[in-house]
Amino acid sequence: MKIISDKTPVVVNITNYLAMNFNANALLAIGASPIMSFYDKEMDDLLKIANSLVINIGCLDDKEIEGMHAAAAAANKYGRPWVIDPVGVGASAARTQTAVELITKYHPAIVRCNASEIMVLHGTACATRGVDSAEPVEKARSCAREFAAEHGTVVAVSGAVDYITDGVREAECSKGSPLMAKVTTMGCCASAICAAFAAVMPPYEAAVHAMNLMGSAGEAAVARSRGTGSLAVNFIDELSLVP
Amino acid sequence: MKIISDKTPVVVNITNYLAMNFNANALLAIGASPIMSFYDKEMDDLLKIANSLVINIGCLDDKEIEGMHAAAAAANKYGRPWVIDPVGVGASAARTQTAVELITKYHPAIVRCNASEIMVLHGTACATRGVDSAEPVEKARSCAREFAAEHGTVVAVSGAVDYITDGVREAECSKGSPLMAKVTTMGCCASAICAAFAAVMPPYEAAVHAMNLMGSAGEAAVARSRGTGSLAVNFIDELSLVP
Amino acid sequence: MKIISDKTPVVVNITNYLAMNFNANALLAIGASPIMSFYDKEMDDLLKIANSLVINIGCLDDKEIEGMHAAAAAANKYGRPWVIDPVGVGASAARTQTAVELITKYHPAIVRCNASEIMVLHGTACATRGVDSAEPVEKARSCAREFAAEHGTVVAVSGAVDYITDGVREAECSKGSPLMAKVTTMGCCASAICAAFAAVMPPYEAAVHAMNLMGSAGEAAVARSRGTGSLAVNFIDELSLVP
Repeated sequence: MKIISDKTPVVVNITNYLAMNFNANALLAIGASPIMSFYDKEMDDLLKIANSLVINIGCLDDKEIEGMHAAAAAANKYGRPWVIDPVGVGASAARTQTAVELITKYHPAIVRCNASEIMVLHGTACATRGVDSAEPVEKARSCAREFAAEHGTVVAVSGAVDYITDGVREAECSKGSPLMAKVTTMGCCASAICAAFAAVMPPYEAAVHAMNLMGSAGEAAVARSRGTGSLAVNFIDELSLVP
Repeated sequence: MKIISDKTPVVVNITNYLAMNFNANALLAIGASPIMSFYDKEMDDLLKIANSLVINIGCLDDKEIEGMHAAAAAANKYGRPWVIDPVGVGASAARTQTAVELITKYHPAIVRCNASEIMVLHGTACATRGVDSAEPVEKARSCAREFAAEHGTVVAVSGAVDYITDGVREAECSKGSPLMAKVTTMGCCASAICAAFAAVMPPYEAAVHAMNLMGSAGEAAVARSRGTGSLAVNFIDELSLVP
Repeated sequence: MKIISDKTPVVVNITNYLAMNFNANALLAIGASPIMSFYDKEMDDLLKIANSLVINIGCLDDKEIEGMHAAAAAANKYGRPWVIDPVGVGASAARTQTAVELITKYHPAIVRCNASEIMVLHGTACATRGVDSAEPVEKARSCAREFAAEHGTVVAVSGAVDYITDGVREAECSKGSPLMAKVTTMGCCASAICAAFAAVMPPYEAAVHAMNLMGSAGEAAVARSRGTGSLAVNFIDELSLVP
């Protein structure tokens, strides 16, 4: 994808172990240069050369949380935009606490999440069920707008119709397919792609571009797929074919 | 798969890093809601909302072993059935000790393993070679029956002909293909699917259903595959197409 | 692949989390028996039964570094050939220090890397950019030769034209495709396959065979692939079809 590959941004990913391979392939497919790491001792070095960062809390442990803090602090130090994916926030106290601390201390450029997750972060009572959203995006819109305004960030909520807001502006993306939710780490991939775009344009525009790319590549991939295994493969193919 | 997706059970997976993505996609394909974690501090929270648990010892470290103990204890506390996959037991003292401790302290509903592994757990001299079985299933049957009876569990042994027993009842499954063993974490996937079925039916029936599903999906996938790369993809496709 | 499957060598892999599944499938496809682990406490047990080892520094943490030292020491103790993949050396001080310590203390049979990485290890000023090479292989040849001679090892440099040397002999492999670099952990896979061959033949010959297999399988896979997602799948298919 020319808009990304023209710059080949280095995107540092602290992400869960499920997402690492799929998300690295997605970032390579669109022309970014991913580094996957969670080692606190190298985060300063990596963020110095990186163009953006994504932090995904899908698989936590004490050491990885230290790596997340080191990375977000280094992103701030070097002025790199960073994206948080608060996977499964609300499913455990550890997830909620980690996400809230990272957001309030280091101010992400973009929060990419599902409806349940932004409602939890906003403090609104909602249904959560493991790492999958139990709420429709419509119910989460006002939470997303208020959270974005209060934290000076962009919120991108994935769902049947994605919703992106910076607290003032808002955009929708109705592309995609419910089958995408049957491929693991598809949401994590949206967050990684947000980070790639955030390396070459402002955060709100980056989130809108990323969600549109996810939707259109997903829709094209579904049309070619027999089931959810081939969908994952075709999705990367589609990303790699965007001119 | 209606019998699973009707309930959409939340299945917590402490599994090795190779298996995480493939197994999460397998669980999503059949209609379960997987959470992959090994963080001891969130296991109580996760098991409270989960319907079942699978513990796979394929990649050990001290912290992950703590997570396994926390998860199995929480599964007992909340009455969730849990499955153990004693990957490579016998290949190292650490693996054997971990598996034996988890089984004797927390009483899994199902032990899903290969022939060498159940022979090691049973204390019968046998050939082991890394993480792949070096013994035929036939030799392991009496070990499986005795182990199941002694520990009040179900043992499901994968191989050319799978063997499932609760110490009294026994079943066979001759579906599948030797090519399935050439796709990494295919056995781990059987264990994860055992956990999904154990969330909606008793353990013995769950193991029989799971091994049959593995065999029939594997056989259908082999028929469509050029090599072992496409086999992994087609296998997930087949799982996702079961009505 | 008969030359490998005749012996079914057990290959221990301490590798990054992205590479684990893909590399295990690659090793299974050619007839090796992979074990993925980074647990220091089981390395002596595993290397005792293993035929070779690969250490890949793509995802570091303190515990994993301990596992790497334990594994390399055990490889020396039992006389197993081992391969290092110094992923992203130069991108952070932690990576450089880890790679240099492992090489100087435990003398790998093969160093499999890209052009930037061997230039960093050799101490030659060069461009690095994250984990992808920023230098052509041509510039790295003399560094590779000198490094191989000085350390008594084989160096295999991946690129448009791969270059393999033991400090005296040298070989080239011009097979492959630039698209292979768009599939994550393709280079890590080359290292894992070097380790499989090193279990059945001397290191220089092993590296030449491995790089040729990578190139020919990659070229055949590219010819069948729509994009980089299917390329990863077809690559494993091709490996599994080599007679």
